[in-house]
Amino acid sequence: MIELSLIGIGTGNPAHLTLQAAEAIRACDLILIPNKGKGKDDLAALRQEICAQVIADAASGPRIVEFDLPVRDPTIADYTARVDHWHDAIARVWIETIRAQLPAPAAAAKVGFLVWGDPSLYDSTMRIAERLKATQEVSLTVIPGVTSIQALTAAHAIPLNEIGAPFTVTTGRQLRENGWPESTDTLVIMLDGECSFQAIDPTGVSIWWSAYAGMENQISLSGPLAETAEQIIQTRAQARADHGWIMDIYLLRKS
Amino acid sequence: MIELSLIGIGTGNPAHLTLQAAEAIRACDLILIPNKGKGKDDLAALRQEICAQVIADAASGPRIVEFDLPVRDPTIADYTARVDHWHDAIARVWIETIRAQLPAPAAAAKVGFLVWGDPSLYDSTMRIAERLKATQEVSLTVIPGVTSIQALTAAHAIPLNEIGAPFTVTTGRQLRENGWPESTDTLVIMLDGECSFQAIDPTGVSIWWSAYAGMENQISLSGPLAETAEQIIQTRAQARADHGWIMDIYLLRKS
Ligand SMILES: C[S@@+](CC[C@H](N)C(=O)[O-])C[C@H]1O[C@@H](n2cnc3c(N)ncnc32)[C@H](O)[C@@H]1O
Ligand SMILES: C[S@@+](CC[C@H](N)C(=O)[O-])C[C@H]1O[C@@H](n2cnc3c(N)ncnc32)[C@H](O)[C@@H]1O
Repeated sequence: MIELSLIGIGTGNPAHLTLQAAEAIRACDLILIPNKGKGKDDLAALRQEICAQVIADAASGPRIVEFDLPVRDPTIADYTARVDHWHDAIARVWIETIRAQLPAPAAAAKVGFLVWGDPSLYDSTMRIAERLKATQEVSLTVIPGVTSIQALTAAHAIPLNEIGAPFTVTTGRQLRENGWPESTDTLVIMLDGECSFQAIDPTGVSIWWSAYAGMENQISLSGPLAETAEQIIQTRAQARADHGWIMDIYLLRKS
Repeated sequence: MIELSLIGIGTGNPAHLTLQAAEAIRACDLILIPNKGKGKDDLAALRQEICAQVIADAASGPRIVEFDLPVRDPTIADYTARVDHWHDAIARVWIETIRAQLPAPAAAAKVGFLVWGDPSLYDSTMRIAERLKATQEVSLTVIPGVTSIQALTAAHAIPLNEIGAPFTVTTGRQLRENGWPESTDTLVIMLDGECSFQAIDPTGVSIWWSAYAGMENQISLSGPLAETAEQIIQTRAQARADHGWIMDIYLLRKS
């Protein structure tokens, strides 16, 4: 029996950690940390740092093990099929790593994953955990975390919604391919590697943009989209070059 | 100079508090807690409890003061005007309370508000804080918190979005009046006193519903909407009668 805990850790600021998340980390036998390889992001290091802070007594705390994240197979043309195949591969690595680290498979083992932000938001950990259930006896617990949406609105001290009004959260790709969805004046764009706000008509639209939201090197820019877009594009390119990686998110509002 | 901190505290589970929120509470001179009056919700008591847990040394910690929340003026027919008027009234009470509690207005004062969930999400505290800026020298800091959306998805261990797909967050009233918005297969409904899922065609729709999400008395129900709606309506009515108040939220997904 494997007790999996998917633990939301917030968006890069170790102080985003909740008391519940800290408790959940300490209660684990094993924490698995994905490693994307050199030159990617610093996220494995940050997860290690969070674990070190939380586990006061290293002798009795969980074992912390990094594993190499498989890469997506570029020969699979279809997006969904490629992602599915990749999730399968990750699930296999999880099982191998858990077996190798917990030599007594008969005993109940508490295995934790530190998930960036909140585990429910544009993250595949939960879908991989579901795959484990197919072959293993697994129970699943999710610990909520502060999302990058919250880190963004906190950075700008702005409300997410207008009074009583809806908002839509979507991806850069969706914005490029499907435009501004009807029935909402507020959009939050995540997973955007291409400054996709360039794809929409900027008339009457304001933007609030943050990179590394909540982190030490947070950068925030805002203003009418028409006047701010160019500055964001340049700032983003520069920051990405400086750090070697970037995570950014923005809110668009029609007035 | 007033330094206002709007501190997200999560959705009723004291362990939702982040390390950053705890630190921000401790750094305040004064914490203001709104009191809605007897028989409403237990939220003032919960905020007091959170403060007590966080402030180890009461002698040097912030002063904690409850204030009576003004009520909305029912004679104002227009919804937006009524809310605006109410926010003005709350801003006045804030100022009066801060003046009364901090007798040296010349000195910088750190005043904190504990905001349910995250301050950016369907909450008026930020709009009231903006009003203070009109008459006072005010700086505003927002500390992000775990939202009830995250508490909901954690309770059910479900992803918020489908892979790469958008989702829309809206209110019960919007769902009743405007139906299911196009361009999204996932809806999160908040601020719904009337089980507004009854207003939509349930064909092909599943629901994940939680009341008191993240709290000790959390209740969760899920299933195809057509088969689950009646049970949710009854469970909700019973829970509301038992506790005297209820907070609930749900996710609807078209398959
Ligand atoms: C794979 S998703 C994970 C989201 C995460 N589960 C959450 O709750 O925020 C990664 C995307 O989240 C956003 N993101 C995450 N952390 C961020 C940060 N610190 N600053 C800005 N954007 C961030 C970016 O849009 C990024 O492309
Ligand atoms: C005024 S809004 C405040 C939302 C809050 N700022 C947040 O971040 O979740 C109140 C609504 O939030 C939802 N809500 C807040 N706490 C909840 C809880 N513990 N369980 C279920 N729903 C909750 C309900 O839909 C409720 O009507």
